[in-house]
Formats: sequence, C-alpha cells, structure tokens
Amino acid sequence: MPSMPSELRVIALEGVPEVRTGDDLAALLNDAIARTPHAAPLREDDVLVVTQKVVSKAEGAIVDLSTVRPRPEASEFARRFDRDARQVEVVLREARRVVRMEQGVLITETEHGFVCANGGVDASNVGPDSGSVVTLLPRDPDASAARIREGVRERTGVDLPVVVSDSFGRPWRWGIVDVAIGVSGLAPLDDLRGSVDHDGRPMRSTVRAIADELASAAELVLGKTAGRPAAVVRGAGIRRGEGSIREMVMPPENDLFR
Amino acid sequence: MPSMPSELRVIALEGVPEVRTGDDLAALLNDAIARTPHAAPLREDDVLVVTQKVVSKAEGAIVDLSTVRPRPEASEFARRFDRDARQVEVVLREARRVVRMEQGVLITETEHGFVCANGGVDASNVGPDSGSVVTLLPRDPDASAARIREGVRERTGVDLPVVVSDSFGRPWRWGIVDVAIGVSGLAPLDDLRGSVDHDGRPMRSTVRAIADELASAAELVLGKTAGRPAAVVRGAGIRRGEGSIREMVMPPENDLFR
Repeated sequence: MPSMPSELRVIALEGVPEVRTGDDLAALLNDAIARTPHAAPLREDDVLVVTQKVVSKAEGAIVDLSTVRPRPEASEFARRFDRDARQVEVVLREARRVVRMEQGVLITETEHGFVCANGGVDASNVGPDSGSVVTLLPRDPDASAARIREGVRERTGVDLPVVVSDSFGRPWRWGIVDVAIGVSGLAPLDDLRGSVDHDGRPMRSTVRAIADELASAAELVLGKTAGRPAAVVRGAGIRRGEGSIREMVMPPENDLFR
Repeated sequence: MPSMPSELRVIALEGVPEVRTGDDLAALLNDAIARTPHAAPLREDDVLVVTQKVVSKAEGAIVDLSTVRPRPEASEFARRFDRDARQVEVVLREARRVVRMEQGVLITETEHGFVCANGGVDASNVGPDSGSVVTLLPRDPDASAARIREGVRERTGVDLPVVVSDSFGRPWRWGIVDVAIGVSGLAPLDDLRGSVDHDGRPMRSTVRAIADELASAAELVLGKTAGRPAAVVRGAGIRRGEGSIREMVMPPENDLFR
C-alpha cells in the first residue's frame, strides 16, 4: 500500500452541464476538470468520484413511468404507503430478490448484488421537464467507470481511477451515505489482514472499504441539491489496480441479514 | 443549511503521543493542532474527528482480559471459531442484545443502541506493552466529544465541533468504514425532506448522514496502522448545533433487521 497521506482534498467539479442520454460523459467531466480551479492539472494521487445519476442518464438507464403498468402487488403496496405504484413496479422489475417490503420501505437486491432501498431506482434530480422519469442503476457500473477513465485517458493521457457512487441507507442507523457502486483503476478494498498494527499486533479482520469512504468524502461537497455530479479526491493513498465492485459484495453464504 | 462548499480538506493531526488513561486528551489534541501545518489556525468551518481508541484509553474504558472469566457460552463460541473467550465475554457483558452470533461473527447492540461487530470491543492499537488489554466504547461518546470541544474552547477560544469515530462493518458489503459514535457542536444529520432538488422536485426521504461521512473522510488519512488518532475536516458545510448521536440510532420499531 502507498504510505498514508497526511492531507486529503475533495474538489467539486464546476460547470458540468445537465446530462442527457447519449452525452459523452467522459468529455463533459474532462471539460469540467479543466475548468475547475485546483482540479487541473490532474495528479497521480487523484480519484474521480462520479454520482450515479449522471452516469445513468448518459447511458439511458432511465424509465418513463408513463409506460409502466404496475403489477397488483406494486399497486397494493403503493396504495397502502402513499407511493407511486409505477415506481414500485420498476423496483420489482430491477430486483433479483426482495429483501424487505414493509412499513412503506422496499429493500431489494439488484442484479449487481447490491442491497438497497428501491433497488437504486430514483426520481430526484433526473432533470428539468423530465416528468415522471426515474433512473435505474447502470447495468454494469464497473464498465461505466472504465469508460469514463478511458475517456479521460484518451483526452489527457492521465490514468485517473474512477468511482461511481450512489446514496444508500443502512440498517440500524438513520440517514444515507454515499458508497461505491462501480470502480475502475483502483482496489476498492484495502486488506490489512496479516499486517500489524501500530504496536506490532497482527490485525485479524481489518479490511478498509476505501471506495465507499471515497464516495462518502465526495458527497460532503456534492450534496443532494447543488447540481454537482462529480468531484476529484486528491491524496487518498489508494492502491491502483484493476479492481471490481464485485469484491465489495458479500456473498449469500456470509450474509447474516438475508 | 450553509451553502455547499466546493472544496473540502482533511488534515491528519501530527505528533499526538501515545494516549494513556487519565491523559487530558483535549490538551494533547490541541497541542497537535498547533503543531500541524495547515491545521492551525482553526477556522469556522472546521470539525475535529477523533477516533474511538484514544478516547477510550484516555477515559479508562479498557479491560485487562487477564481479569476476565468467560461464561460457558463465550468459551464454546471462542473454541469453535478460534477466538479469545475472554474477549467474547467482554463483548457479551457490553451487550444490550445479541443480534447475531454465528460463523465466528458476534454482532451485538450496545447500550448506546449501536449495532456492530464485537460491540466495539477492540484489541488492536491499544498500546505497547498492553498485553491482553481491550478497549470498550466510551460510556457516553457525546459527552466525550463535548469534553474535547470544551477543552479546545478553553485553550483557544474556538468552538470546534467534534465527532468521535469508530470502524463499523455493514451487512451485505465487505469492509469497514468509519462512522460517528459521538458528536458535539454539530447536527449529525442533514434533513433535506421537504426541500426541493436541483429541478424543483420535493425530496421525500433524503436525510444525509453527515457525521458518518465526516468520519469516513477522516479515515482516509488516519487509516489503521499509522498511529494517527485525529484529523481536522475543513469546509464540510456542516450545520452547527447541539446535536446528539442518539439522532442517528434507528429505534426498534423502524428496524427491519433485528
């Protein structure tokens, strides 16, 4: 692992325009990097964190709810809990498995293996005049991250690791935090098992979820209302490599909260 | 809410000595702030994140395992899964409720209402020559944060919000992230319900877990091996106030993963 840095910076990219389906997101982000004071020139220890919404919009991972006919189960749940039955239908379509569907909360496991509220289907910040459009999670968020990374590399020659982030709730705690849903160019986990602590004791079970912490750090400057979809995180001491978000998904046999 | 900042910095404090029971932690941290380039002078938008281990050590929230006699249940679990029966015993003593105890994993609910592996009882980085000592979570982590905040204010006149952090695992995802276990001087949650998104749509369920994201951002420069127990997070746009970590604990009636 690289030595631990003593200072980290998170720089929100400025002037990313409203993203639409078919847009070259890497080009838009690269322009924003060039335009943002302190972001350019990119450095060796930078990571680009991009929020899911713009990735899904650029890729067309959206659904117009006016085209959706909810199944009876979706209508019943929506009626009971004052929700949009068509959105509930989309969540169920995107689900590999329903984890919880009670108290108005719908938690599903997506095809990626993520367990989250509404399977990542989201209506907020979709765009002006978007009516009843919702975004889905990108089909292959690692590939989404890789395309952005490749697009930046083509334009600048810089190999910039990319994290695609989304906001997830957690059991037992209120509030949402941003976590990683796709990565390219970095190891999402920092596995310290077998290394020793400050006092020389072996650490038995310490695996740092670096990619999730990068996403959370970025959220602090991106927020939910500001229209900022991406940030450069500088100096996090990540380990480069061809990692995958699949490394972060706990397999069923280790999952004590099915 | 303050306007969203465009840049965040996380500055690891330098030269915090090995902390021992009875030490004036606020004084040690204040000295470290003064000693760390870029940290001093403190600013209005700073938050101090302090990791649990040094708080527990300063407060004497430690147990010498040589004094612990495990109950049969602890011995049996430890034997099956190659763990220290005395540490398992301490975890059970600290627990209000056992959430899961299987596959060698012991997840409990602490008296604070936190649900985490081993109830926050931890043997790593306890100190040199500490033999079989483990740390417990601070009895009242909000009060711990308040004491540090008050100690810094006495010495510098600056009202510096404080977050006490610890590393928690999560269901469904590998790896640990730092979260808040105590706060003073800030609102741990940023409740955006009722406000509108970038496109003017009301946001129905967005509550940002700011204190947890501050803890995660700090972890990126503190790590697990570097002997760094605290960081200043500058520019996070937090909302000041007399918040409590209790706001972040989900009550049983909303908990779908008992």
